[in-house]
Amino acid sequence: MTLSLNQRARELADRLADESDALRIAVRTLPGGTRLVDCGSAVPGGLEAGRRFAEITMGGLGSVTFAPLVLDGRWLPGLTVVTDHPALACLASQYAGWQIDRDGYFAMASGPARALIRAEELFDDLDVDERASTAVLCLETRDEPPPEVAAHVAERAGVAPADLTLLAAPTASLAGGVQVAARIVETALHKLHEVEFDVRRVVSGFGTCPLPPVARTDPEAIGRTNDAVLYGGQVELTVDAPDDELESIVDRLPSSASRDYGEPFGKVLERAGWDFYAIDPMLFSPAEVRVVSVETGRSFHAGAVEPDVLERSFRG
Amino acid sequence: MTLSLNQRARELADRLADESDALRIAVRTLPGGTRLVDCGSAVPGGLEAGRRFAEITMGGLGSVTFAPLVLDGRWLPGLTVVTDHPALACLASQYAGWQIDRDGYFAMASGPARALIRAEELFDDLDVDERASTAVLCLETRDEPPPEVAAHVAERAGVAPADLTLLAAPTASLAGGVQVAARIVETALHKLHEVEFDVRRVVSGFGTCPLPPVARTDPEAIGRTNDAVLYGGQVELTVDAPDDELESIVDRLPSSASRDYGEPFGKVLERAGWDFYAIDPMLFSPAEVRVVSVETGRSFHAGAVEPDVLERSFRG
Amino acid sequence: MTLSLNQRARELADRLADESDALRIAVRTLPGGTRLVDCGSAVPGGLEAGRRFAEITMGGLGSVTFAPLVLDGRWLPGLTVVTDHPALACLASQYAGWQIDRDGYFAMASGPARALIRAEELFDDLDVDERASTAVLCLETRDEPPPEVAAHVAERAGVAPADLTLLAAPTASLAGGVQVAARIVETALHKLHEVEFDVRRVVSGFGTCPLPPVARTDPEAIGRTNDAVLYGGQVELTVDAPDDELESIVDRLPSSASRDYGEPFGKVLERAGWDFYAIDPMLFSPAEVRVVSVETGRSFHAGAVEPDVLERSFRG
Repeated sequence: MTLSLNQRARELADRLADESDALRIAVRTLPGGTRLVDCGSAVPGGLEAGRRFAEITMGGLGSVTFAPLVLDGRWLPGLTVVTDHPALACLASQYAGWQIDRDGYFAMASGPARALIRAEELFDDLDVDERASTAVLCLETRDEPPPEVAAHVAERAGVAPADLTLLAAPTASLAGGVQVAARIVETALHKLHEVEFDVRRVVSGFGTCPLPPVARTDPEAIGRTNDAVLYGGQVELTVDAPDDELESIVDRLPSSASRDYGEPFGKVLERAGWDFYAIDPMLFSPAEVRVVSVETGRSFHAGAVEPDVLERSFRG
Repeated sequence: MTLSLNQRARELADRLADESDALRIAVRTLPGGTRLVDCGSAVPGGLEAGRRFAEITMGGLGSVTFAPLVLDGRWLPGLTVVTDHPALACLASQYAGWQIDRDGYFAMASGPARALIRAEELFDDLDVDERASTAVLCLETRDEPPPEVAAHVAERAGVAPADLTLLAAPTASLAGGVQVAARIVETALHKLHEVEFDVRRVVSGFGTCPLPPVARTDPEAIGRTNDAVLYGGQVELTVDAPDDELESIVDRLPSSASRDYGEPFGKVLERAGWDFYAIDPMLFSPAEVRVVSVETGRSFHAGAVEPDVLERSFRG
Repeated sequence: MTLSLNQRARELADRLADESDALRIAVRTLPGGTRLVDCGSAVPGGLEAGRRFAEITMGGLGSVTFAPLVLDGRWLPGLTVVTDHPALACLASQYAGWQIDRDGYFAMASGPARALIRAEELFDDLDVDERASTAVLCLETRDEPPPEVAAHVAERAGVAPADLTLLAAPTASLAGGVQVAARIVETALHKLHEVEFDVRRVVSGFGTCPLPPVARTDPEAIGRTNDAVLYGGQVELTVDAPDDELESIVDRLPSSASRDYGEPFGKVLERAGWDFYAIDPMLFSPAEVRVVSVETGRSFHAGAVEPDVLERSFRG
């Protein structure tokens, strides 16, 4: 199997589409030929659709499996993410870093097509030489992308519109919740990038995150899905770096390093006047992080889960 | 892949039969042509045979995976069940709702053939339009079904005897214990049906249950396998219903809502003179249940695991 | 699928080799034609490579899956091992019981080729009649085996050098750590054999073990990978034996039964002057063991995890 993120994602997307009935998803061809897979907007979707959606966002270079979690003795449905290509799977692919804002359509885009488009400065810090004749982009949205947007994405990715697959799931859906929870290792990588660590040196990642219960509305779901990560997410990274470097950054890695930490994310967002950019970027990371140096074999740990905040957020 | 419960189960049963040596099961053709897969009566069977047996009972619309559980700090082997078709997978298929009592042969039958036979009133409350030219029925039994029973089942299911697969596992077997523990979401659905909730509104289910150690005899195993669910089972359901409705039923959902709760099930059964019908039907449900309303995003929770009762039951 | 350990392992090894890029492993053909799969020496390898390595060491008769563990409330990445062929998968195959010491090359060998070679007395106590025209041997080593060693192994296994696959992973590598942790059921079986229990009577095994963080050097990794098992490993075995027999041995099964128990293994080894044979063989076993008698349904339990020792060992 090739390492092309898009080629791998395409094979997974084909299998997803093949089982649309069982997964309660809808597959349509947009005018222009782009395939749209709706995982939770006009259709119910589900947990398994979300699990596969998540593996596709990682370009097929990570596994996502359901797992029960125990946080301070409390049982919670959750998932485990494992990847041996953290920078590639999580940042070059899974990170929702490309903003589509065009023809009145807005969505945050993740997935491997980003590695073809390379619109983000982030790619300067990654070793990615993605080439593919097929592209897969994932959207956290309730709104069907218009054909013009599909054509635009295809053009940016350098593929024919018929060779583009768009996956979509609203935040307030089962699949939407799963795919955000599955960003648990990604958020740790992103935080490392924020503190200017060379993320290419992260050798592997293992993370778990509770599944956020489906919220009533997408804005409410934004709060709850973030809380799953910020207050319930746990990650261990194996890193090729010396002790002093890891020791100097580990305390900044968990969400608790942020001044905005402590309240459910919905409240933080409200306090910030619903302006994402007013929120401390240091907030977006797992609750608990351990980094292991392969150079020295030493581990550094920071943060802790906060089941009480999680419970307030999840109970609704 | 089709949504036909029996077609999906048949494909899984074919794969099960293909690996009979590794799974320590026995595949035979009964006079008349029905395939019988013995998963633990004349052969040892095993945990993996039970896991697959369980996925077959769900008509291939749910996943069963082994997972370690921690109950009040105690480690227990267990499993996770996830389904996006709770009513279909659990009630139309997995529920052991059809009683075979014929030609001196008695067994409780579960699995997708029930959805073809539709002998139970339960089907009036489900949206099931199962059509299939192949049928799979699962039996919790130590006794091989005679050819007459196979012919009867096939006739009731509307398939030729040669298109019927029967899976069998005694309660006191590895596979038997796994497949009962895998009923953890099903028992929650069944309880919802008992309290007259419209189970078609359950959108997804996630549950875990400890694996009951193999008991010495089938009657003892009935106690222990039920205890796994009643005192160790935990379920979260996502439901399309308003808060007041969920609030009014949630306290009735866990096993603790029953007057027969508190003792190992073997003792309850003994006290009831081994008459199942004398036992409070409210008892049969997971220890802990959380229901999430997709209408409002609010969660409702009731019950708790009882590791002490579980330990008394499991230790033997 | 056949029950041949080597045939099953070969199929898994072929799939492993097919995905070498994604798994960050290297596949080479040695002079003579033997296939060498390096899972972590000259290449990074990874967690998934280790998971597959482990399933191959078990001759394809066990499953290894990643799972989060909670030990005394502390979160740890870990794995679950399930097998319905404990003696065959763990002792006839997975146990690192064959010592290669030839042409200046030294390595402890595990995997199914041992069941063809039968160099160890252990095989007298197992019912193994392995026949295969292909062989797979697994090496815990950093050094590439020379072609002479490959030829020797092939000859001993009775296959052509071109029909031999060698898998290698150093102890201080991601894959190396995973494959040792995956020996959690094997160590319980091996201890049973040490106390002269007939291991063919073990019907199934379920175990979990934390993943040891990668150590700086292979000697340090030997300490840490052993600690994962000795202080963090938990196993439940289902056994066909009477109560009195199980009762009389259960206290000897966990690592705590050893006089060398209590310190990180690196310290034990140091105290023993790095002489493995000076260490109490009773030490090598899981921290916690439960055995269930299928004859009586009773369970016997001994030992407990020691997260404090584990933390000292893992933190480095």
